[in-house]
Amino acid sequence: MTALENRQPGDVRMRGFTRRTTLADALDWLDAHTGPLASEAAPLEDVCGRVLAEEIRSEVSVPGFSRSMMDGYALRAGETEGAGPYNRLPLAVIGESMPGQPFEGAVAAGEAVRIMTGAALPEGADAVLPVERVEAAGERILVLAAVSPGQHVGRVGEDITAGSVVFQAGRRLRPQDIGVLSSIGLARVAVVRRPRVRIVVTGNELLPAGSRPEGCRIADSNGPMLRALIERDGGLAINPGIVPDSSEAILEAMRTEADLVLVSGGSSVGQEDHAAAMVIKHGTLPIHGIAIRPSSPTGLGLLDGRVVVLLPGNPVACLCAYDFFGGRAVRRLGGRPSDWPYRRVSLPLARKIASTVGRDEYLRVRLVDGGVEPVAIGGSSVLSSTSRADGFVVIPCDSEGYPAGTPVTVYLYDP
Amino acid sequence: MTALENRQPGDVRMRGFTRRTTLADALDWLDAHTGPLASEAAPLEDVCGRVLAEEIRSEVSVPGFSRSMMDGYALRAGETEGAGPYNRLPLAVIGESMPGQPFEGAVAAGEAVRIMTGAALPEGADAVLPVERVEAAGERILVLAAVSPGQHVGRVGEDITAGSVVFQAGRRLRPQDIGVLSSIGLARVAVVRRPRVRIVVTGNELLPAGSRPEGCRIADSNGPMLRALIERDGGLAINPGIVPDSSEAILEAMRTEADLVLVSGGSSVGQEDHAAAMVIKHGTLPIHGIAIRPSSPTGLGLLDGRVVVLLPGNPVACLCAYDFFGGRAVRRLGGRPSDWPYRRVSLPLARKIASTVGRDEYLRVRLVDGGVEPVAIGGSSVLSSTSRADGFVVIPCDSEGYPAGTPVTVYLYDP
Repeated sequence: MTALENRQPGDVRMRGFTRRTTLADALDWLDAHTGPLASEAAPLEDVCGRVLAEEIRSEVSVPGFSRSMMDGYALRAGETEGAGPYNRLPLAVIGESMPGQPFEGAVAAGEAVRIMTGAALPEGADAVLPVERVEAAGERILVLAAVSPGQHVGRVGEDITAGSVVFQAGRRLRPQDIGVLSSIGLARVAVVRRPRVRIVVTGNELLPAGSRPEGCRIADSNGPMLRALIERDGGLAINPGIVPDSSEAILEAMRTEADLVLVSGGSSVGQEDHAAAMVIKHGTLPIHGIAIRPSSPTGLGLLDGRVVVLLPGNPVACLCAYDFFGGRAVRRLGGRPSDWPYRRVSLPLARKIASTVGRDEYLRVRLVDGGVEPVAIGGSSVLSSTSRADGFVVIPCDSEGYPAGTPVTVYLYDP
Repeated sequence: MTALENRQPGDVRMRGFTRRTTLADALDWLDAHTGPLASEAAPLEDVCGRVLAEEIRSEVSVPGFSRSMMDGYALRAGETEGAGPYNRLPLAVIGESMPGQPFEGAVAAGEAVRIMTGAALPEGADAVLPVERVEAAGERILVLAAVSPGQHVGRVGEDITAGSVVFQAGRRLRPQDIGVLSSIGLARVAVVRRPRVRIVVTGNELLPAGSRPEGCRIADSNGPMLRALIERDGGLAINPGIVPDSSEAILEAMRTEADLVLVSGGSSVGQEDHAAAMVIKHGTLPIHGIAIRPSSPTGLGLLDGRVVVLLPGNPVACLCAYDFFGGRAVRRLGGRPSDWPYRRVSLPLARKIASTVGRDEYLRVRLVDGGVEPVAIGGSSVLSSTSRADGFVVIPCDSEGYPAGTPVTVYLYDP
């Protein structure tokens, strides 16, 4: 699907676009123009799920001291040799070692120190006898079992050795990683900055999100949907409201301080296509019209060095274009994997599906009894169809569709 | 695993606990004491991923007017009958209908109104002829193709019909759902309140999270790990810092205004087990000691009517107990599915694994060439092992383990 011919499938309805870029070429362009942003130092509370921008090498060992792994008695293992229920060996208890409150002296022959899990092993001791293997008798204990040197002792650096690499740059941090970072004394680490994403919603027919629709005006659905998508992908959404449908207002909005601009509405080739015109005039719009369905009017360009994605105004097409391009840009800027965050399953088609050769198709499907079928309601303006759908299937541009029973990869909307 | 016998596997190391509850019984108790919290009205910006607390019925139709699905000409379909490239039929263009700016008049015989995608269909018209099927000629157009009534017209209520149920209560909201809610004029909806989760970290050996460890003290790793886990599961974490290891301080911390209390450290049966003692004294602790490995010292109780989970202080055991109980409680309080949010895959064991009958085992594993193997480094104090692991496997209490090659369900830490 790289041949130039495929770029012009000659669909009369797309007359307005001089050529249509293949999905593969559009993704190549996007990937070439998006990569991890610079890093910022962020506190541990704010780094889970984000991407490390530096290699983490520990300056300390964890633990930094030999510690007990059990509640019991710190002693010299050699002295327990031969101990058993019928050979109970006495030791004098000379003190205790508690977590954070070590025993300050040393353990000599014939002695033991009461010790709790996590407490420092006293000098002279080399093992811990669990409390269950001891009979207490006043200031003495009777040892009921033998232990070997090092037994029930956590060695210095058992968890992490000073000087070792704990995490590589590029790692996406998990909750337990945050714990590990904390344990080596780091309260902040360098992570890839969150992409700031300006959402520019235009359209004179639009009322602010959540407004009751009236007359021939509809409430903006793309703005709040895009915000949720951007945040899911780790970005910071900037959307102060609907932008008036004028060249100047749209240009100004697209020039907001941000790392990425997503424009919703006015990406087609109609007379009101101010956003495209402004990107062409003040930047470049190398891709406008992509061989996908829906969302063919999508545009990809640069303005002031930032990527601008022109999304179709129809909400299904807007979601599809976000899924193909917007989300990928957000994830790549944030250092995350480019791939979809959707869970994928392989399921057989319950019904045949037809597709047009020459464009990749994003088909909403729902799960039915062991398989999937397309969601019947079609138009790209019917957003509720994406709520009724369980996920989507992508039919590649070289396919005419598949017969019933064909296993297909389904990308599930729910996590 | 419900028989009472199984509750007392008679492991001498667990002497301190009078009996150990099975995992199944512990989960039953937890489920009986956790359910969705009350609802709150929240703005659309704050509801993605959260759980609807009300049925949503639309008061409006979307769209609320017939609209054009194409750029073209609104006309009477009957008048295009027989039109073709060699039978170009003329119509007079009497105005235009733009999104948000409808044509105020009516379309009569011999007339057409220029119309854009999303604009209201004028009175009198019943179809839209796409611009590509027209030859423009001054104030007239020449129709090059026939259209049928309703063609390229989005009907009133095509997306959503007034009075219909859009979402059921209990639905976890997706980004596109937020768009749908906005489109029907809702700026706020009732969602299950986010659980406020008090993290109570105790231990005299602990330095604040991210502190450089020194002497026999270690930096708290459980606090920041738990915060990240709670937030992943949709909760609001409350953790003002390490709580002094005294009965009074721990009791006061456990009584913070919250929906759930997670205590880390001091859940065993040692002398410093203030948290358990205080829950027993001022509430109930029906479960203390669970037949799982690691994390057997876990406790589940009630204090002032709120669930308290006593997590082991050892970080791996803390993570495991959170995975089994803490996270489940957070998710259930927030109305989410009880199940783990981890992606699961079935993979063969690369090496045999052994397990002890009588307890469920949480085994950290890593992916190797087409299969999984246990992460070698063992102790439940070695948190970095959970960072090296790719996920975990649960070996049920009635199993002695599995030979190499057995397919097992792996829960992957990464999304």
